[in-house]
Amino acid sequence: MPHPGPGEVCVRVSYAGICGSDLHYFLHGGFGKIRMQEPMVLGHEGCGIIQAVGSGVDSDRIGQWVAVNPSLSCRVCDECRAGRVRFCTSMCFMGSATRNPPVEGVFRQHVVCTAAQALPYTGETLEEAALAEPLAVCLHAISQVNGLNDKRVLITGFGPIGALCLLVARHAGAAHISVTDVSASALDLARQLGANAAYDSSVPGALDALTEEGGCVDVSLECSAHPSAIADAITATRPCGTVVQIGMLGLETTAPLTHIVTKELNFRGSFRFDVEFEEAVKLIASRKIDVRPLITQRLSLAEADKAFSLAQDRNQSMKVLFKF
Amino acid sequence: MPHPGPGEVCVRVSYAGICGSDLHYFLHGGFGKIRMQEPMVLGHEGCGIIQAVGSGVDSDRIGQWVAVNPSLSCRVCDECRAGRVRFCTSMCFMGSATRNPPVEGVFRQHVVCTAAQALPYTGETLEEAALAEPLAVCLHAISQVNGLNDKRVLITGFGPIGALCLLVARHAGAAHISVTDVSASALDLARQLGANAAYDSSVPGALDALTEEGGCVDVSLECSAHPSAIADAITATRPCGTVVQIGMLGLETTAPLTHIVTKELNFRGSFRFDVEFEEAVKLIASRKIDVRPLITQRLSLAEADKAFSLAQDRNQSMKVLFKF
Amino acid sequence: MPHPGPGEVCVRVSYAGICGSDLHYFLHGGFGKIRMQEPMVLGHEGCGIIQAVGSGVDSDRIGQWVAVNPSLSCRVCDECRAGRVRFCTSMCFMGSATRNPPVEGVFRQHVVCTAAQALPYTGETLEEAALAEPLAVCLHAISQVNGLNDKRVLITGFGPIGALCLLVARHAGAAHISVTDVSASALDLARQLGANAAYDSSVPGALDALTEEGGCVDVSLECSAHPSAIADAITATRPCGTVVQIGMLGLETTAPLTHIVTKELNFRGSFRFDVEFEEAVKLIASRKIDVRPLITQRLSLAEADKAFSLAQDRNQSMKVLFKF
Amino acid sequence: MPHPGPGEVCVRVSYAGICGSDLHYFLHGGFGKIRMQEPMVLGHEGCGIIQAVGSGVDSDRIGQWVAVNPSLSCRVCDECRAGRVRFCTSMCFMGSATRNPPVEGVFRQHVVCTAAQALPYTGETLEEAALAEPLAVCLHAISQVNGLNDKRVLITGFGPIGALCLLVARHAGAAHISVTDVSASALDLARQLGANAAYDSSVPGALDALTEEGGCVDVSLECSAHPSAIADAITATRPCGTVVQIGMLGLETTAPLTHIVTKELNFRGSFRFDVEFEEAVKLIASRKIDVRPLITQRLSLAEADKAFSLAQDRNQSMKVLFKF
Repeated sequence: MPHPGPGEVCVRVSYAGICGSDLHYFLHGGFGKIRMQEPMVLGHEGCGIIQAVGSGVDSDRIGQWVAVNPSLSCRVCDECRAGRVRFCTSMCFMGSATRNPPVEGVFRQHVVCTAAQALPYTGETLEEAALAEPLAVCLHAISQVNGLNDKRVLITGFGPIGALCLLVARHAGAAHISVTDVSASALDLARQLGANAAYDSSVPGALDALTEEGGCVDVSLECSAHPSAIADAITATRPCGTVVQIGMLGLETTAPLTHIVTKELNFRGSFRFDVEFEEAVKLIASRKIDVRPLITQRLSLAEADKAFSLAQDRNQSMKVLFKF
Repeated sequence: MPHPGPGEVCVRVSYAGICGSDLHYFLHGGFGKIRMQEPMVLGHEGCGIIQAVGSGVDSDRIGQWVAVNPSLSCRVCDECRAGRVRFCTSMCFMGSATRNPPVEGVFRQHVVCTAAQALPYTGETLEEAALAEPLAVCLHAISQVNGLNDKRVLITGFGPIGALCLLVARHAGAAHISVTDVSASALDLARQLGANAAYDSSVPGALDALTEEGGCVDVSLECSAHPSAIADAITATRPCGTVVQIGMLGLETTAPLTHIVTKELNFRGSFRFDVEFEEAVKLIASRKIDVRPLITQRLSLAEADKAFSLAQDRNQSMKVLFKF
Repeated sequence: MPHPGPGEVCVRVSYAGICGSDLHYFLHGGFGKIRMQEPMVLGHEGCGIIQAVGSGVDSDRIGQWVAVNPSLSCRVCDECRAGRVRFCTSMCFMGSATRNPPVEGVFRQHVVCTAAQALPYTGETLEEAALAEPLAVCLHAISQVNGLNDKRVLITGFGPIGALCLLVARHAGAAHISVTDVSASALDLARQLGANAAYDSSVPGALDALTEEGGCVDVSLECSAHPSAIADAITATRPCGTVVQIGMLGLETTAPLTHIVTKELNFRGSFRFDVEFEEAVKLIASRKIDVRPLITQRLSLAEADKAFSLAQDRNQSMKVLFKF
Repeated sequence: MPHPGPGEVCVRVSYAGICGSDLHYFLHGGFGKIRMQEPMVLGHEGCGIIQAVGSGVDSDRIGQWVAVNPSLSCRVCDECRAGRVRFCTSMCFMGSATRNPPVEGVFRQHVVCTAAQALPYTGETLEEAALAEPLAVCLHAISQVNGLNDKRVLITGFGPIGALCLLVARHAGAAHISVTDVSASALDLARQLGANAAYDSSVPGALDALTEEGGCVDVSLECSAHPSAIADAITATRPCGTVVQIGMLGLETTAPLTHIVTKELNFRGSFRFDVEFEEAVKLIASRKIDVRPLITQRLSLAEADKAFSLAQDRNQSMKVLFKF
């Protein structure tokens, strides 16, 4: 067991979720311009139990259930001082190869982090806390919109991020939520989770109801990063509406940007999260956001190959967790 | 001389500017999906003198100098009622073929419009009022940004819209303004008008100073609609910055949208104008925005061919006016 | 029956609500600096059935159920042109003495107004539409806050406006709603309508839970205009929170403004409504906002004295309607 | 000389300004509910030269000119985690008695603070850096308004804060700036510093031009905390305008709050500053904000009595500095 330094804690990892970026590292060794330079422990969606605390940390925290915030900013660079800590130029993000050497991830038995990164979790079952990180991503994305109450919302792409966006949009009082995907099982789950409409976007004309007369959706949450889905989001959004691009895009993408001008759309990216991590932990613990239906498998690290192949198969899985 | 109806005025046109969209109609019969179905008088940048007033309009206005707002919304459609009058579903916009039959433009001796569309102009010389419409476009675009004071600004494309954006950005207290174009004479004028830096974007590496370390510009105003300029604007803008797309894009455009996500950019279109037209008339009249350096030629309608060819040649002209 | 002019309709009034300002006119001949100069028909919360239409209005509208928007702005004054139509300098507001001669109100059999002021109402029972105007007031007030989803809300004063604010706050997804009043029956109704807590603010220390540690409420909606309630709202609101002052204040009021500085509060007034009237009509018709529990009495104009005395007695009534 | 701990620096104080709160402590032992419990060194507007650095701080910083940020937040309390560090529940603010024991101020030869609190200052003369703290207060207050460019601004109260607000408003491109005070010399300085109008608010009717027709000012910056000035600010501000209350108010204040409702004003407090301190240091160093005309006296600590009495006499002084 590693020893926590001053102000740090050592967390025994109990559950950790597999994210799309983990899959990219696993399958391709990276994504975009980011490449692994050396072996690295993956994973940034972890939760567990505090095993030991360093000097200056209340020893009462030993045994506490926590969700691990994988993000640690320096607070002194220009971006941090400007209040844009997500863009910290020396960001330490667990399981990411953007730094070299990389910051090891949470797919291991023990993780040492600052006491502030280990957020107390008071829910009934610990495994749900593994979804705090992806939920924080969705809360941050939706925080870029001026509220969803009574709004018409479109979610394109119904993987774990799309599904969590649906739960957040419902919680936020959206008036009507449409979902698009190409997987029948994903669309079924969307309906079960309360989508007002779920469309197979591979069917020609499937979205006509959304796109006619210049679009009727107030806010689109683009979670698939697929060019056709971006086009759907842009064409379905009404004048002066907002498209939040959450799915990570490739270096170059072709999109019907003309509508962004003629409809004066607000097309904005969303990257990771900030204070939303703490909010996510509370929403899961209180089950105001009930993530249980999203957890489809729990496997041991010994079953890593099976876990990663399941995580790739959207007809068999939504969120796959490692259980330690 | 046409007779004004109730609440209308008849304006004798004195000056009218040639806009890029006029050129598209002249050269290609339209742009994007918009095609002229029948002959139409072009022009939407007009000013003149009130010749006659209809019932209910103060006869003191006869003889008044006015700038003509080419835009008339219905105020009753869903978009108007939602406060998005620019997107009025039955918009009457002078010199535009979006309606069929089209609304005739201002390249003619007399224009009849509502009294409210004829805005009193109190400047010293009337011709400057012909730039109220393009200035309104720029004011509206910049109104989408939360102020430019002390901001670092990039303007890509230095035609009349880019040049007016520069004047507005200076007036708004921008801390530093960079301009990009491929025309040497345009870049010279940019420097004369107060650009802190002017770059030939066709020179490899010309923008390295702007793009290094993820971009240093707070706000980019994209006025060229050229894909490489859009890419420049996106790469030069710092995390959480804004790119306002003013130039009208083609149906499909390829852009490095990945940076919109990883830098969480706010990429927003701007379409025409709203209350900014009145503001533009006042800023020109007071010369708080001095548009005189932009007026490069004044020709008669008889010289229309020469006027349109000059307007296409950015090395010879900035804004070409018809003088009646 | 009066005859509607061009673009006008004649509405046969079916129900009309008594508002606090009607009571002020009835009891004191006005409020603040506003005094009735001559007899005037009161009432600005009306609904009914279209009896006749003027030229240019679709005759299919005859027989249509409508809510009457009492507000008509000129659209040409400086305030209207600036988009602040609520502050139109020649506003025509039914049943208000701010103009002289005043604009007659809706406590009469027939009202003639513009076709746009008569909003189609598609609900099951017409009487509910009489609450569109006060609901619009609440929607406008709450529109000044950046969303109530997951927020802690305090409502001070539980008359019809406070009660409608509670319904709107619940609909907007507020996390926790506290209500204060001095009437036991009002507090009972608040609990029935879903308030998480209801306090008798006349009991010393009743609000300690809200005010300790500098206040824990994100948004306070002040509906009573009583100085002690304003003080409660200010002290209960957390740093950087918002207090929306809806209740009309006297010319001079004493309040603990020091906390507005030391807690950097956003204390903002809200006046009447704008586009929210149409939204209110739809929310009532769909019963997304169910106003039925607020309608406590329906009386005929012949019972006007009884109606006004009931409307004054908050232990006996919430919203009193005239039925025609 | 005190010894800096890890991550700290020791600054030899060169100049320190006297603030109104210092005067309150000096004359009354505190203000509002805040009382000194024990002797405390006053002062929170200091600048100087780094004498020594603790472990982990670059020794190249020794000899560096710095402005001292008197504010140190804990970053872990609820307010800090919510991003409201100004309201940190265990804030350490130099020269303030809000904590007990208090945090000693900068009216002494050496101050030890974190390296981040000592901001490098690159201006020509060091004394100007003593105004970074009050300038930060003004920048923060004005940051609460959506830009001042082309706005009509009223500044009530022309002490050092009012004067710095004038410089910021000019820098921000305000279209017209009015100032009110009761001191002739303050009004003269306002005119010299570029106020478009300066009024003696003790003269009946002096502000009629500002208050007629419901007020013509877009933004009022209230710097005097005097009830009559608050009333002036409220009555002079146009509908939907903003009044920023910067002057610290007493526990109870009487104001014409009725106009806040009927004009739908945004009355918001502003408390201290946040990231604006760094911005202030840069603006002073570059003289984009030239504070030199505000520095009226420089005295030694031995002349403290004279310094405090001068600082109270607004006809003799604007900003009084201690020089070490």
